Amino acid sequence: MIVLVVNCGSSSIKYQLFDMPEQRVIAKGLVERIGEEGSALVYEHDGKKSKVEQSIPDHDAGVELILKALVSPEGGVIKDIGEIKAVGHRVVHGGEAFTGSVLINDEVIASIEKVADLAPLHNPPNLTGIRASQHAMPSVPQIACFDTAFHNTIPQVAYMYALPYELYEKFGIRRYGFHGTSHRWVARRAAEMLGKHKYDINCITCHLGNGSSIAAVKDGKSIDTSMGLTPLEGVAMGTRCGDIDPAILFYLTDKGYSIADLNKLCNKQSGVLGLSGSSNDMRTLGEKAAAGDERAQLALDVFAYRVKKYIGTYTAVLGKLDAVVFTGGIGENAVDIRAAICNDMDQIGIELDPELNQGVAGGEVKISSENSRVAVLVIPTNEEAAIAVDTYQMSQA
Amino acid sequence: MIVLVVNCGSSSIKYQLFDMPEQRVIAKGLVERIGEEGSALVYEHDGKKSKVEQSIPDHDAGVELILKALVSPEGGVIKDIGEIKAVGHRVVHGGEAFTGSVLINDEVIASIEKVADLAPLHNPPNLTGIRASQHAMPSVPQIACFDTAFHNTIPQVAYMYALPYELYEKFGIRRYGFHGTSHRWVARRAAEMLGKHKYDINCITCHLGNGSSIAAVKDGKSIDTSMGLTPLEGVAMGTRCGDIDPAILFYLTDKGYSIADLNKLCNKQSGVLGLSGSSNDMRTLGEKAAAGDERAQLALDVFAYRVKKYIGTYTAVLGKLDAVVFTGGIGENAVDIRAAICNDMDQIGIELDPELNQGVAGGEVKISSENSRVAVLVIPTNEEAAIAVDTYQMSQA
Repeated sequence: MIVLVVNCGSSSIKYQLFDMPEQRVIAKGLVERIGEEGSALVYEHDGKKSKVEQSIPDHDAGVELILKALVSPEGGVIKDIGEIKAVGHRVVHGGEAFTGSVLINDEVIASIEKVADLAPLHNPPNLTGIRASQHAMPSVPQIACFDTAFHNTIPQVAYMYALPYELYEKFGIRRYGFHGTSHRWVARRAAEMLGKHKYDINCITCHLGNGSSIAAVKDGKSIDTSMGLTPLEGVAMGTRCGDIDPAILFYLTDKGYSIADLNKLCNKQSGVLGLSGSSNDMRTLGEKAAAGDERAQLALDVFAYRVKKYIGTYTAVLGKLDAVVFTGGIGENAVDIRAAICNDMDQIGIELDPELNQGVAGGEVKISSENSRVAVLVIPTNEEAAIAVDTYQMSQA
Repeated sequence: MIVLVVNCGSSSIKYQLFDMPEQRVIAKGLVERIGEEGSALVYEHDGKKSKVEQSIPDHDAGVELILKALVSPEGGVIKDIGEIKAVGHRVVHGGEAFTGSVLINDEVIASIEKVADLAPLHNPPNLTGIRASQHAMPSVPQIACFDTAFHNTIPQVAYMYALPYELYEKFGIRRYGFHGTSHRWVARRAAEMLGKHKYDINCITCHLGNGSSIAAVKDGKSIDTSMGLTPLEGVAMGTRCGDIDPAILFYLTDKGYSIADLNKLCNKQSGVLGLSGSSNDMRTLGEKAAAGDERAQLALDVFAYRVKKYIGTYTAVLGKLDAVVFTGGIGENAVDIRAAICNDMDQIGIELDPELNQGVAGGEVKISSENSRVAVLVIPTNEEAAIAVDTYQMSQA
């Protein structure tokens, strides 16, 4: 069965076409710069890359272009659009309404709209993508997979901020958490690697990329996570500050910064970019640090230190810990950062094997030493496959 | 040798008179409502309490009144002001300048003034108290003891926020930490209780009162702490929110809140008061929770949960952990909260003995079980004695 997975940003559409249940990727690509100069479709099929440059005024046009490429006599991979039996959509914010993926209907759309102001950069384009896809394939089931859904099991003691309770009732101010599809995927894979049932593992999943979050998974369910109301909270990221003293914002307002300045500063100019003053890319920072750039080294050190802190935090929350899992672009590839994070963790019982840590090459690998009381695993994330699996299952039900 | 210890607030002066080096308290009291209606001196001596109600227009008048009471033929404890050989002052914010207590001179005063806008509620009254005391006792050495000084050993990786580096250079935005005098005192006492040298202990000190902070102490030195640029960051407190997603402030600004509203909301209307909607007092919340008030129970649960999280955080940071220390009004007295914090901490190796935890009665007590890999200690804090010790030592040097 053919399943299309769609991830819409404000000016982009990422997609992958899967043959299910084998999870085989038949085609994938990206529509970029929608409504801008230089809009294009870039796609891969059978190991080849193609680019179609043309005006793409809106998401409807983008979805049409994708479907046209999928059936095109040259680079196409299916004969007819009708072969696509279900479409899975990534939706960033599901609020408190969804505990898992759902078949999209008017009620679901209303719920996604309702929490749009909690994710103003993401939910509106996600909805635009859903509508464009419904428009192009009106008789195909469309499924929504929420970044927040896996975290819906977080208990109240962990999701409440110590703010006036009315703010929760009136505005829904609470911890929601993100990257849920990734945390769930690697937690399930970790259970399988350790020979455990998916609801019989306590692990800490570290999704480390340009946006990073850590989750505490108890008995296979998320019970806490580092991102909160928005993806700004938590560890230091590429350009986001993560946790700060909230009074810093009051202090800087006194110094003449506007709220708009501070929002931009915390989201776009902070993190390892702000600390290093030069880059939000870990490889670039690694090269600079090796060449003697102290600020680049500081940025790397702070990044690792703050992930280490969260591993401690969630060890306390979990009580008993089976595994720490690294995933995401940084988690899967940055040998030195994994080493720095796991260094000197005797009390918790984490010990890396330096050679195993060095030898990770794209697969699912255990990198802890024989003596480590906690397994340390590197597991490539695959959010698209997770969405494809959910979409396949929902459309069978 | 007689030493006076002074702690000035914006409209109050707390003081204790010590006989040193025995650390014997000869007298103590409080001038309250300076410059307001109903100003008064309340003081204790030889187990008796006295109250002098009179107009106290400023801190100079307050210090004069204290000295008068100390030598008064009725309730006095010394014959002549000249018997006071040194005065120790609590100063909240020392910025990056001070690694310990110092003899006050013009340069020190200039340094305290320089960082006044980092602690606008505290440093100005602290300075007012120093000047009033210098004015009343011009020939006596005055010593400043900073809440921040013990945390001056925190390394850069822990004190830098992941914000643009220029904010640190330009405004001194970094983690400073507070309650340092208390964290130091109990860390030293913990080392003594465990038969260790003061520079040979790794411990986590939990100062839990209306303001609360946690510190990671490695080899007897502070290497991280939960309060940051200001005392707003960290665990949930009586009325302070502690850690939140900074984007909550952007979100609420969009909803019409002013920065002044939010500052007040986070500092005065949040914490366990905000969650419970009824009280910032743990005993009151305990009674309400026992009577079925769910919001009071939630506030207690969140308080304990967030302390537990920091114990995990600092276990990771310390690598190896000898002891967790509880101090402050809540840390010393709240049996159930200590139990909730330490519950289910197998991985870290913390296990309370319920009977020992129940039986704490004001002294220094070990409350962990025989099997606990980490000692859990209750140690009453004594910031005044710590200041008296520093003052005595500095004035002897």
